Amino acid sequence: MKLYNLDHVGIAVNDLDAAIAGYLDRYGVEPTHRQVVADQGVEEAMIPIGGSFVQLLAALSPHTPVGRFLERKGEGLHHIAYAVLDIDEALAHLAARGARLIDEFPRIGGSGARIAFVHPSDLAGTLIELVEHPDG
Amino acid sequence: MKLYNLDHVGIAVNDLDAAIAGYLDRYGVEPTHRQVVADQGVEEAMIPIGGSFVQLLAALSPHTPVGRFLERKGEGLHHIAYAVLDIDEALAHLAARGARLIDEFPRIGGSGARIAFVHPSDLAGTLIELVEHPDG
Repeated sequence: MKLYNLDHVGIAVNDLDAAIAGYLDRYGVEPTHRQVVADQGVEEAMIPIGGSFVQLLAALSPHTPVGRFLERKGEGLHHIAYAVLDIDEALAHLAARGARLIDEFPRIGGSGARIAFVHPSDLAGTLIELVEHPDG
Repeated sequence: MKLYNLDHVGIAVNDLDAAIAGYLDRYGVEPTHRQVVADQGVEEAMIPIGGSFVQLLAALSPHTPVGRFLERKGEGLHHIAYAVLDIDEALAHLAARGARLIDEFPRIGGSGARIAFVHPSDLAGTLIELVEHPDG
């Protein structure tokens, strides 16, 4: 297990256009890409900041994980994603320690990366995403 | 206004020792420093990950901002901090756009950096901290 980067921070928003416009107006930053990830029920926009990204996340419907999060808690910080070199090894390491995994096996994320989520009840109330990028 | 790094992500925790032990057990990472910041009512531990930090935050009492956050929402993601080169210029830029600032003028943070917070109601429900490090 080696976390080599804070890959991104996911922020749930009600209105993706408004949030993108707000980041540009307030902070002068804007997304390099934006896409629908139907599998996760979101439209996401990735804003590069230093070596990391802010990921703005809008729900495709109220009946999605982000839609339920927005209804329950409103807009705000949703998850933190750490980049790992070997996600299979990382998940095996976590499973061996009894971590509460949402994904026991990796799935394919929006950018083509292999990703997996760890349940917020596992550590510090935080939904954690592990990301293994295709290019390491 | 130029955000040049995702400086850190603050996570509110009930038990700082337990959260530090959890990050070491699960992810093999540990703090480079840990300190009480009486001014902010917290004890914090900074865990480096890539070019950023995870900042674990425990409240010194329930009657502090982090204490109230923990009582209201429980453990979890608390704020995101962006590094800027010139915090005075950044605050002037935000004020000119009508941003809802918690700090109109910078104060001194735990590490000696100049910091200021922007209210979560300003953008995407997110408590944002701006950080100007002494060494740029």
